[in-house]
Amino acid sequence: MGKIICAGLGPGDPDLISVRAHRILRSARHVAFFRKAGRQGQARRIVQGLIPDDAIEYPMEYPVTTEIPFDSPEYNDLLASFYDSWASRLETMAADRDIIVPCEGDPFFYGSFMHLYVRLRDKVEIEVIPGIPGMAGCWNATGTPVTWGDDVMSVLMGTLPRADLVRHMQVANALVIMKTGRNLPKIRQALALAGRLEDAWLIERGTMPGERVVRLQEVEDHDCPYFAIVMVHGQGRRPERRIPEAAQ
Amino acid sequence: MGKIICAGLGPGDPDLISVRAHRILRSARHVAFFRKAGRQGQARRIVQGLIPDDAIEYPMEYPVTTEIPFDSPEYNDLLASFYDSWASRLETMAADRDIIVPCEGDPFFYGSFMHLYVRLRDKVEIEVIPGIPGMAGCWNATGTPVTWGDDVMSVLMGTLPRADLVRHMQVANALVIMKTGRNLPKIRQALALAGRLEDAWLIERGTMPGERVVRLQEVEDHDCPYFAIVMVHGQGRRPERRIPEAAQ
Ligand SMILES: C[S@@+](CC[C@H](N)C(=O)[O-])C[C@H]1O[C@@H](n2cnc3c(N)ncnc32)[C@H](O)[C@@H]1O
Ligand SMILES: C[S@@+](CC[C@H](N)C(=O)[O-])C[C@H]1O[C@@H](n2cnc3c(N)ncnc32)[C@H](O)[C@@H]1O
Repeated sequence: MGKIICAGLGPGDPDLISVRAHRILRSARHVAFFRKAGRQGQARRIVQGLIPDDAIEYPMEYPVTTEIPFDSPEYNDLLASFYDSWASRLETMAADRDIIVPCEGDPFFYGSFMHLYVRLRDKVEIEVIPGIPGMAGCWNATGTPVTWGDDVMSVLMGTLPRADLVRHMQVANALVIMKTGRNLPKIRQALALAGRLEDAWLIERGTMPGERVVRLQEVEDHDCPYFAIVMVHGQGRRPERRIPEAAQ
Repeated sequence: MGKIICAGLGPGDPDLISVRAHRILRSARHVAFFRKAGRQGQARRIVQGLIPDDAIEYPMEYPVTTEIPFDSPEYNDLLASFYDSWASRLETMAADRDIIVPCEGDPFFYGSFMHLYVRLRDKVEIEVIPGIPGMAGCWNATGTPVTWGDDVMSVLMGTLPRADLVRHMQVANALVIMKTGRNLPKIRQALALAGRLEDAWLIERGTMPGERVVRLQEVEDHDCPYFAIVMVHGQGRRPERRIPEAAQ
């Protein structure tokens, strides 16, 4: 009996993979990974040069990405049968071999592997190795701590309606907004409405070759990178020497 | 000229340290780490057996932990001079050697090192290596993904006033509450008021020896572990085969 091992890859720099995931990837024989049709895929790119040359690869190609609205029944059905069919393929394969599934960031944090996991967890032995979430690579790339003291940090998806984004942006201290791409103009409007646009940063391809860290206000309107995070750092309590009152 | 390297350690299992931090720890000559007076310290415990036996160690002992209210001027002053004085010691030391500062989780996410970082960043070369935040080790330990689809995840500190906790618990989908300890009764009340107590889990020492994963409702009132996270998983959108209407 084999098992399925989902290896969290972290934000992109292979040096940020955990010791455990690194060891498992180096000796992988069967590697399944998600990608958009016609692309290499983030996960596959990160493990390039790490998995053995003669490992057998199984690209799991999304049947659809942004062509159909993600909240439509058609999208649901296409994705559901995609996950159903890969779940049963992996189940069959796992009968006699280990299958490694490298996934960007942390697998249990908005990851695609979760959809295979819930379909397979009662049928196959599965190990999930946590990884550094992409957002942690991104705030590290800004060179500024993200949360202090009692700061509340909220993680928001750019796919949310604008009004929801605004509401959450108003009440949290630190903000992380993922799934940018075509949602970027909406994210920008929401930040402006919440009075937070000036403090927002865009981090594209954090910790990867071609990393870009820039104030969101400086990003052109037509420039909508998908593999990017928008972030507002918290400014919470921190112990600082107080200026004696007499000197103020 | 030396530099200061803060190495994020991840949630606790040494196998979850990044390849980069692991390499740097293994060849460390000077190691400074935070701890409570009289304790070994989480960070030091995690690197036990990893840093060389003959490395020189500098325990940075907090002058105070929970004896004084964390929002009082006395607490601020004590902590400010603690960070000031270690910042200047490390600055002097870094003139002719590298100093490694191992820190639990991710250093830029509610970490103590941030207080040294802001004091030293214009004076000394500093490298910060991200790590898997403790919360990611904790949700991994529950065996259940934490966020799906458009879920909003909020990270809250148990030190917040109860009313603030309730307000945030009502609007976010997934919740992570850190700094438990004596705040646990308040956290529990807030979750109950927000209608989320039934879905809350307590994860103590996630990924470490003695890890405990238990429903918060099953935790006794007097049982208030400090090194624990309270978590409510998100239940957001996921593609699932729909039951044909005729069959419903
Ligand atoms: C489907 S989510 C997967 C998240 C992943 N499981 C994690 O833990 O980061 C994909 C989104 O993650 C964000 N992301 C992940 N890693 C990133 C990186 N290194 N740089 C910029 N954005 C990143 C982008 O916003 C992207 O739209
Ligand atoms: C000062 S914060 C430091 C957070 C750290 N920088 C991180 O990224 O996780 C300390 C809090 O982290 C939480 N924590 C961190 N790692 C944990 C683990 N492995 N298990 C349980 N709680 C953890 C606890 O709530 C604790 O009160």
